[in-house]
Amino acid sequence: MNYCNQCSGKLTLLTPNGDHRQRYVCLDCGNIHYTNPKVVTGCLVEHNNKILLCKRNIEPRKGLWTLPAGFMEDHETSAEGAARETYEETLADVSIDELFAFYDIPHISQIYMIYRAHLKTEHYGPTAESSEVVLMTESEIPWSEIAFPVIEKTLKHFYASKKTGKLKTHFGIIDRRNEVK
Amino acid sequence: MNYCNQCSGKLTLLTPNGDHRQRYVCLDCGNIHYTNPKVVTGCLVEHNNKILLCKRNIEPRKGLWTLPAGFMEDHETSAEGAARETYEETLADVSIDELFAFYDIPHISQIYMIYRAHLKTEHYGPTAESSEVVLMTESEIPWSEIAFPVIEKTLKHFYASKKTGKLKTHFGIIDRRNEVK
Repeated sequence: MNYCNQCSGKLTLLTPNGDHRQRYVCLDCGNIHYTNPKVVTGCLVEHNNKILLCKRNIEPRKGLWTLPAGFMEDHETSAEGAARETYEETLADVSIDELFAFYDIPHISQIYMIYRAHLKTEHYGPTAESSEVVLMTESEIPWSEIAFPVIEKTLKHFYASKKTGKLKTHFGIIDRRNEVK
Repeated sequence: MNYCNQCSGKLTLLTPNGDHRQRYVCLDCGNIHYTNPKVVTGCLVEHNNKILLCKRNIEPRKGLWTLPAGFMEDHETSAEGAARETYEETLADVSIDELFAFYDIPHISQIYMIYRAHLKTEHYGPTAESSEVVLMTESEIPWSEIAFPVIEKTLKHFYASKKTGKLKTHFGIIDRRNEVK
Protein backbone atom coordinates (compact mmCIF):
# COMPACT_ATOMS: atom_id res chain seq x y z
CA MET A 1 0.00 0.00 0.00
CA ASN A 2 1.60 3.23 -1.19
CA TYR A 3 -1.11 5.83 -1.82
CA CYS A 4 -4.38 6.94 -0.19
CA ASN A 5 -7.39 5.59 -2.09
CA GLN A 6 -9.39 8.66 -1.04
CA CYS A 7 -7.06 11.55 -1.99
CA SER A 8 -4.00 9.85 -3.65
CA GLY A 9 -1.66 11.23 -0.94
CA LYS A 10 1.44 9.21 0.00
CA LEU A 11 0.79 6.77 2.87
CA THR A 12 2.94 6.60 6.00
CA LEU A 13 3.22 3.53 8.24
CA LEU A 14 2.68 4.64 11.85
CA THR A 15 0.75 3.79 15.01
CA PRO A 16 -2.19 6.22 15.31
CA ASN A 17 -2.98 7.79 18.70
CA GLY A 18 -4.91 5.35 20.87
CA ASP A 19 -4.17 2.45 18.54
CA HIS A 20 -1.93 -0.56 19.22
CA ARG A 21 -0.78 -1.41 15.69
CA GLN A 22 0.97 0.23 12.79
CA ARG A 23 -1.42 1.36 10.07
CA TYR A 24 -1.06 2.97 6.69
CA VAL A 25 -2.13 6.57 7.36
CA CYS A 26 -2.60 9.42 4.89
CA LEU A 27 -1.02 12.54 6.40
CA ASP A 28 -2.77 14.68 3.74
CA CYS A 29 -6.41 13.74 4.45
CA GLY A 30 -6.06 11.81 7.74
CA ASN A 31 -7.56 8.58 6.43
CA ILE A 32 -6.40 5.40 8.17
CA HIS A 33 -6.22 2.37 5.86
CA TYR A 34 -7.03 -0.75 7.86
CA THR A 35 -6.50 -4.27 6.56
CA ASN A 36 -8.42 -7.19 8.02
CA PRO A 37 -8.60 -10.98 7.66
CA LYS A 38 -10.53 -12.39 4.72
CA VAL A 39 -13.14 -15.13 4.85
CA VAL A 40 -12.88 -18.08 2.46
CA THR A 41 -16.11 -20.03 2.12
CA GLY A 42 -16.85 -23.26 0.29
CA CYS A 43 -18.64 -26.59 0.20
CA LEU A 44 -18.07 -30.23 0.97
CA VAL A 45 -20.65 -31.62 -1.45
CA GLU A 46 -21.78 -35.20 -0.77
CA HIS A 47 -23.53 -37.31 -3.37
CA ASN A 48 -24.03 -41.10 -3.17
CA ASN A 49 -21.25 -41.42 -0.59
CA LYS A 50 -18.85 -39.45 -2.82
CA ILE A 51 -17.36 -35.96 -2.46
CA LEU A 52 -17.12 -33.35 -5.22
CA LEU A 53 -13.48 -32.37 -5.82
CA CYS A 54 -12.01 -30.04 -8.40
CA LYS A 55 -8.58 -29.87 -9.99
CA ARG A 56 -7.34 -26.28 -9.90
CA ASN A 57 -6.93 -24.65 -13.29
CA ILE A 58 -5.54 -21.42 -11.81
CA GLU A 59 -2.68 -20.45 -9.57
CA PRO A 60 -1.88 -20.93 -6.74
CA ARG A 61 -1.54 -24.72 -6.70
CA LYS A 62 -2.68 -25.20 -10.31
CA GLY A 63 -3.09 -28.91 -11.07
CA LEU A 64 -3.79 -29.90 -7.45
CA TRP A 65 -7.17 -30.94 -6.04
CA THR A 66 -9.42 -28.97 -3.72
CA LEU A 67 -12.95 -28.43 -2.49
CA PRO A 68 -14.80 -25.60 -4.25
CA ALA A 69 -14.19 -22.46 -2.15
CA GLY A 70 -13.22 -18.83 -2.52
CA PHE A 71 -13.34 -15.37 -0.98
CA MET A 72 -16.65 -14.33 0.53
CA GLU A 73 -18.05 -11.24 -1.19
CA ASP A 74 -19.65 -8.12 0.29
CA HIS A 75 -23.42 -8.33 0.83
CA GLU A 76 -23.71 -12.10 0.89
CA THR A 77 -23.90 -14.61 3.74
CA SER A 78 -21.12 -17.15 4.22
CA ALA A 79 -23.50 -19.93 3.10
CA GLU A 80 -24.56 -18.00 -0.02
CA GLY A 81 -20.90 -17.44 -0.80
CA ALA A 82 -20.15 -21.15 -0.38
CA ALA A 83 -22.91 -22.07 -2.86
CA ARG A 84 -21.83 -19.33 -5.28
CA GLU A 85 -18.20 -20.43 -5.26
CA THR A 86 -19.27 -24.05 -5.74
CA TYR A 87 -21.30 -23.09 -8.81
CA GLU A 88 -18.49 -20.93 -10.24
CA GLU A 89 -15.88 -23.66 -9.83
CA THR A 90 -17.91 -26.81 -10.57
CA LEU A 91 -21.25 -25.75 -12.21
CA ALA A 92 -22.95 -27.68 -9.39
CA ASP A 93 -26.16 -26.17 -8.02
CA VAL A 94 -26.15 -27.09 -4.32
CA SER A 95 -28.30 -26.84 -1.21
CA ILE A 96 -26.41 -25.93 1.95
CA ASP A 97 -26.89 -28.26 4.92
CA GLU A 98 -24.78 -26.92 7.77
CA LEU A 99 -21.36 -25.56 8.66
CA PHE A 100 -18.97 -28.46 8.87
CA ALA A 101 -15.54 -26.89 9.45
CA PHE A 102 -14.31 -23.52 10.64
CA TYR A 103 -10.56 -22.84 10.63
CA ASP A 104 -8.57 -19.82 11.76
CA ILE A 105 -5.40 -19.51 9.64
CA PRO A 106 -3.69 -16.50 11.24
CA HIS A 107 -0.36 -16.60 9.37
CA ILE A 108 -2.23 -15.78 6.15
CA SER A 109 -4.98 -13.72 7.88
CA GLN A 110 -7.79 -15.97 6.69
CA ILE A 111 -10.82 -17.70 8.12
CA TYR A 112 -12.01 -20.83 6.29
CA MET A 113 -15.64 -21.96 6.42
CA ILE A 114 -16.66 -25.21 4.75
CA TYR A 115 -20.36 -26.08 4.59
CA ARG A 116 -21.78 -29.54 4.03
CA ALA A 117 -24.02 -29.43 0.99
CA HIS A 118 -25.78 -31.69 -1.50
CA LEU A 119 -26.48 -31.52 -5.23
CA LYS A 120 -29.89 -30.24 -6.31
CA THR A 121 -29.34 -31.92 -9.70
CA GLU A 122 -26.66 -34.29 -10.98
CA HIS A 123 -25.18 -31.61 -13.21
CA TYR A 124 -21.54 -30.52 -12.67
CA GLY A 125 -18.39 -30.22 -14.76
CA PRO A 126 -15.18 -28.35 -15.55
CA THR A 127 -15.02 -24.55 -15.56
CA ALA A 128 -12.44 -21.86 -16.23
CA GLU A 129 -11.24 -22.35 -12.64
CA SER A 130 -11.32 -26.19 -12.57
CA SER A 131 -9.85 -28.42 -15.28
CA GLU A 132 -11.63 -31.49 -13.82
CA VAL A 133 -14.60 -31.83 -11.48
CA VAL A 134 -15.08 -35.35 -10.10
CA LEU A 135 -17.21 -37.14 -7.49
CA MET A 136 -14.79 -39.36 -5.56
CA THR A 137 -15.06 -42.04 -2.94
CA GLU A 138 -12.72 -41.81 0.05
CA SER A 139 -10.30 -44.30 -1.51
CA GLU A 140 -10.21 -42.37 -4.79
CA ILE A 141 -9.07 -39.10 -3.20
CA PRO A 142 -5.49 -38.22 -4.31
CA TRP A 143 -4.25 -37.39 -0.80
CA SER A 144 -0.75 -36.42 -1.94
CA GLU A 145 -2.18 -33.95 -4.47
CA ILE A 146 -4.47 -31.84 -2.28
CA ALA A 147 -3.92 -28.12 -2.89
CA PHE A 148 -4.13 -26.72 0.65
CA PRO A 149 -3.52 -28.09 4.18
CA VAL A 150 -6.91 -26.76 5.34
CA ILE A 151 -8.67 -28.84 2.66
CA GLU A 152 -6.75 -32.00 3.56
CA LYS A 153 -7.61 -31.45 7.24
CA THR A 154 -11.27 -30.86 6.43
CA LEU A 155 -11.51 -34.04 4.35
CA LYS A 156 -9.68 -36.14 6.95
CA HIS A 157 -11.89 -34.76 9.70
CA PHE A 158 -14.97 -35.50 7.59
CA TYR A 159 -14.11 -39.17 7.12
CA ALA A 160 -13.05 -39.59 10.76
CA SER A 161 -16.34 -37.99 11.86
CA LYS A 162 -18.37 -40.20 9.54
CA LYS A 163 -16.85 -43.27 11.16
CA THR A 164 -17.99 -42.09 14.60
CA GLY A 165 -21.35 -40.91 13.25
CA LYS A 166 -20.77 -37.42 14.71
CA LEU A 167 -20.86 -34.81 11.94
CA LYS A 168 -21.02 -31.74 14.15
CA THR A 169 -19.24 -28.47 13.35
CA HIS A 170 -15.49 -28.71 13.78
CA PHE A 171 -13.39 -25.71 14.91
CA GLY A 172 -9.67 -25.72 14.20
CA ILE A 173 -6.59 -23.52 13.91
CA ILE A 174 -3.81 -23.89 11.36
CA ASP A 175 -1.09 -21.73 12.85
CA ARG A 176 2.26 -21.27 11.13
CA ARG A 177 2.94 -17.77 12.44
CA ASN A 178 6.20 -18.89 14.02
CA GLU A 179 7.36 -20.50 10.78
CA VAL A 180 6.61 -17.59 8.45
CA LYS A 181 8.06 -14.77 10.56
CA MET B 1 -12.49 4.46 -3.36
CA ASN B 2 -11.02 6.97 -5.85
CA TYR B 3 -7.32 6.19 -6.39
CA CYS B 4 -5.12 3.12 -6.75
CA ASN B 5 -3.20 2.43 -3.53
CA GLN B 6 -0.36 0.92 -5.60
CA CYS B 7 0.29 3.61 -8.25
CA SER B 8 -2.15 6.49 -7.34
CA GLY B 9 -3.93 6.15 -10.72
CA LYS B 10 -7.64 7.02 -10.93
CA LEU B 11 -9.90 4.00 -10.27
CA THR B 12 -12.70 2.94 -12.61
CA LEU B 13 -15.71 0.87 -11.53
CA LEU B 14 -16.11 -2.01 -14.00
CA THR B 15 -16.63 -5.77 -14.20
CA PRO B 16 -13.27 -7.40 -15.02
CA ASN B 17 -13.14 -10.18 -17.64
CA GLY B 18 -14.26 -13.47 -16.12
CA ASP B 19 -15.64 -11.76 -13.02
CA HIS B 20 -19.30 -11.42 -12.00
CA ARG B 21 -19.15 -8.17 -10.00
CA GLN B 22 -18.13 -4.58 -10.48
CA ARG B 23 -14.73 -3.80 -8.96
CA TYR B 24 -12.58 -0.73 -8.61
CA VAL B 25 -9.89 -1.26 -11.25
CA CYS B 26 -6.79 0.82 -11.96
CA LEU B 27 -6.50 1.21 -15.72
CA ASP B 28 -2.94 2.53 -15.29
CA CYS B 29 -1.36 -0.47 -13.49
CA GLY B 30 -4.14 -3.10 -13.83
CA ASN B 31 -4.63 -3.61 -10.10
CA ILE B 32 -8.11 -4.77 -9.04
CA HIS B 33 -9.19 -3.46 -5.63
CA TYR B 34 -11.41 -6.03 -3.97
CA THR B 35 -13.45 -5.34 -0.86
CA ASN B 36 -14.60 -8.19 1.38
CA PRO B 37 -16.68 -8.70 4.52
CA LYS B 38 -15.10 -7.93 7.87
CA VAL B 39 -15.12 -10.16 10.94
CA VAL B 40 -16.20 -8.72 14.29
CA THR B 41 -15.13 -10.82 17.24
CA GLY B 42 -15.92 -10.48 20.93
CA CYS B 43 -16.78 -12.13 24.22
CA LEU B 44 -19.74 -13.00 26.35
CA VAL B 45 -17.92 -13.04 29.70
CA GLU B 46 -19.68 -14.91 32.50
CA HIS B 47 -18.79 -14.41 36.15
CA ASN B 48 -20.91 -15.55 39.12
CA ASN B 49 -24.01 -15.83 36.91
CA LYS B 50 -23.48 -12.29 35.59
CA ILE B 51 -22.43 -11.00 32.17
CA LEU B 52 -19.85 -8.27 31.51
CA LEU B 53 -21.41 -5.37 29.60
CA CYS B 54 -19.89 -2.07 28.57
CA LYS B 55 -21.42 1.31 27.86
CA ARG B 56 -20.05 2.66 24.60
CA ASN B 57 -17.94 5.79 24.94
CA ILE B 58 -17.41 6.10 21.17
CA GLU B 59 -19.63 6.37 18.11
CA PRO B 60 -21.59 4.64 16.71
CA ARG B 61 -24.23 4.15 19.43
CA LYS B 62 -22.31 6.08 22.09
CA GLY B 63 -24.06 5.73 25.46
CA LEU B 64 -25.66 2.39 24.66
CA TRP B 65 -24.64 -1.00 26.08
CA THR B 66 -22.84 -3.80 24.31
CA LEU B 67 -20.64 -6.85 24.70
CA PRO B 68 -16.91 -6.18 24.20
CA ALA B 69 -16.20 -6.82 20.49
CA GLY B 70 -14.42 -5.29 17.54
CA PHE B 71 -12.80 -5.91 14.18
CA MET B 72 -10.56 -8.95 13.96
CA GLU B 73 -7.00 -7.97 13.06
CA ASP B 74 -4.56 -9.51 10.59
CA HIS B 75 -2.39 -12.33 11.97
CA GLU B 76 -4.59 -13.23 14.93
CA THR B 77 -7.19 -15.97 15.45
CA SER B 78 -10.82 -15.05 16.01
CA ALA B 79 -10.53 -16.19 19.65
CA GLU B 80 -7.36 -14.14 20.21
CA GLY B 81 -9.14 -11.14 18.69
CA ALA B 82 -12.12 -11.66 21.00
CA ALA B 83 -9.86 -11.68 24.09
CA ARG B 84 -7.89 -8.66 22.80
CA GLU B 85 -11.01 -6.60 22.17
CA THR B 86 -12.36 -7.56 25.60
CA TYR B 87 -9.18 -6.33 27.25
CA GLU B 88 -9.12 -3.11 25.21
CA GLU B 89 -12.74 -2.27 26.03
CA THR B 90 -13.06 -3.54 29.62
CA LEU B 91 -9.52 -4.20 31.01
CA ALA B 92 -10.72 -7.76 31.69
CA ASP B 93 -8.18 -10.54 31.14
CA VAL B 94 -10.26 -13.49 29.94
CA SER B 95 -9.92 -17.16 29.01
CA ILE B 96 -11.89 -18.21 25.95
CA ASP B 97 -14.21 -21.18 26.40
CA GLU B 98 -15.94 -21.77 23.05
CA LEU B 99 -17.72 -20.06 20.19
CA PHE B 100 -21.22 -19.24 21.33
CA ALA B 101 -22.76 -17.25 18.46
CA PHE B 102 -21.95 -16.77 14.79
CA TYR B 103 -24.02 -14.29 12.78
CA ASP B 104 -23.91 -13.37 9.12
CA ILE B 105 -24.98 -9.72 8.68
CA PRO B 106 -24.88 -9.32 4.89
CA HIS B 107 -26.39 -5.83 4.58
CA ILE B 108 -23.35 -4.41 6.37
CA SER B 109 -20.93 -7.09 5.03
CA GLN B 110 -19.97 -8.35 8.47
CA ILE B 111 -19.61 -11.65 10.28
CA TYR B 112 -20.04 -11.56 14.07
CA MET B 113 -18.38 -14.14 16.31
CA ILE B 114 -19.08 -14.10 20.05
CA TYR B 115 -17.08 -16.45 22.28
CA ARG B 116 -18.08 -17.54 25.77
CA ALA B 117 -15.28 -16.60 28.15
CA HIS B 118 -14.52 -16.23 31.82
CA LEU B 119 -12.45 -13.81 33.90
CA LYS B 120 -8.94 -14.89 34.86
CA THR B 121 -8.98 -12.29 37.65
CA GLU B 122 -11.75 -10.06 39.02
CA HIS B 123 -10.16 -6.96 37.53
CA TYR B 124 -12.12 -4.90 34.96
CA GLY B 125 -13.18 -1.27 34.53
CA PRO B 126 -13.84 1.68 32.23
CA THR B 127 -11.57 2.47 29.29
CA ALA B 128 -11.33 5.07 26.54
CA GLU B 129 -13.88 3.01 24.59
CA SER B 130 -16.26 2.21 27.49
CA SER B 131 -17.55 4.79 29.98
CA GLU B 132 -18.87 2.03 32.27
CA VAL B 133 -18.05 -1.69 32.54
CA VAL B 134 -20.48 -3.66 34.69
CA LEU B 135 -21.23 -7.29 35.57
CA MET B 136 -25.02 -7.63 35.28
CA THR B 137 -27.57 -10.29 36.08
CA GLU B 138 -30.20 -11.02 33.44
CA SER B 139 -32.75 -8.78 35.15
CA GLU B 140 -30.28 -5.88 35.33
CA ILE B 141 -29.62 -5.79 31.56
CA PRO B 142 -31.01 -2.55 30.03
CA TRP B 143 -32.74 -4.29 27.11
CA SER B 144 -34.01 -1.07 25.55
CA GLU B 145 -30.49 0.41 25.54
CA ILE B 146 -28.51 -2.32 23.75
CA ALA B 147 -26.30 -0.84 21.02
CA PHE B 148 -26.72 -3.41 18.23
CA PRO B 149 -29.40 -5.95 17.22
CA VAL B 150 -26.78 -8.71 16.99
CA ILE B 151 -25.83 -8.15 20.65
CA GLU B 152 -29.45 -8.19 21.80
CA LYS B 153 -30.02 -11.43 19.85
CA THR B 154 -26.87 -13.01 21.30
CA LEU B 155 -27.87 -12.15 24.87
CA LYS B 156 -31.46 -13.35 24.39
CA HIS B 157 -30.23 -16.58 22.83
CA PHE B 158 -27.79 -17.04 25.70
CA TYR B 159 -30.47 -16.79 28.38
CA ALA B 160 -32.89 -18.97 26.40
CA SER B 161 -30.14 -21.58 25.95
CA LYS B 162 -29.25 -21.48 29.64
CA LYS B 163 -32.84 -22.31 30.52
CA THR B 164 -32.73 -25.43 28.32
CA GLY B 165 -29.20 -26.29 29.47
CA LYS B 166 -27.98 -26.41 25.84
CA LEU B 167 -25.18 -23.90 25.32
CA LYS B 168 -24.02 -25.13 21.92
CA THR B 169 -22.85 -22.81 19.15
CA HIS B 170 -25.68 -20.83 17.59
CA PHE B 171 -25.65 -19.84 13.90
CA GLY B 172 -27.88 -16.97 12.77
CA ILE B 173 -28.41 -14.43 10.02
CA ILE B 174 -29.48 -10.81 10.47
CA ASP B 175 -30.54 -9.85 6.98
CA ARG B 176 -31.79 -6.37 6.15
CA ARG B 177 -30.58 -6.31 2.55
CA ASN B 178 -34.10 -5.66 1.27
CA GLU B 179 -34.59 -2.77 3.67
CA VAL B 180 -31.33 -0.95 2.97
CA LYS B 181 -31.34 -1.16 -0.84
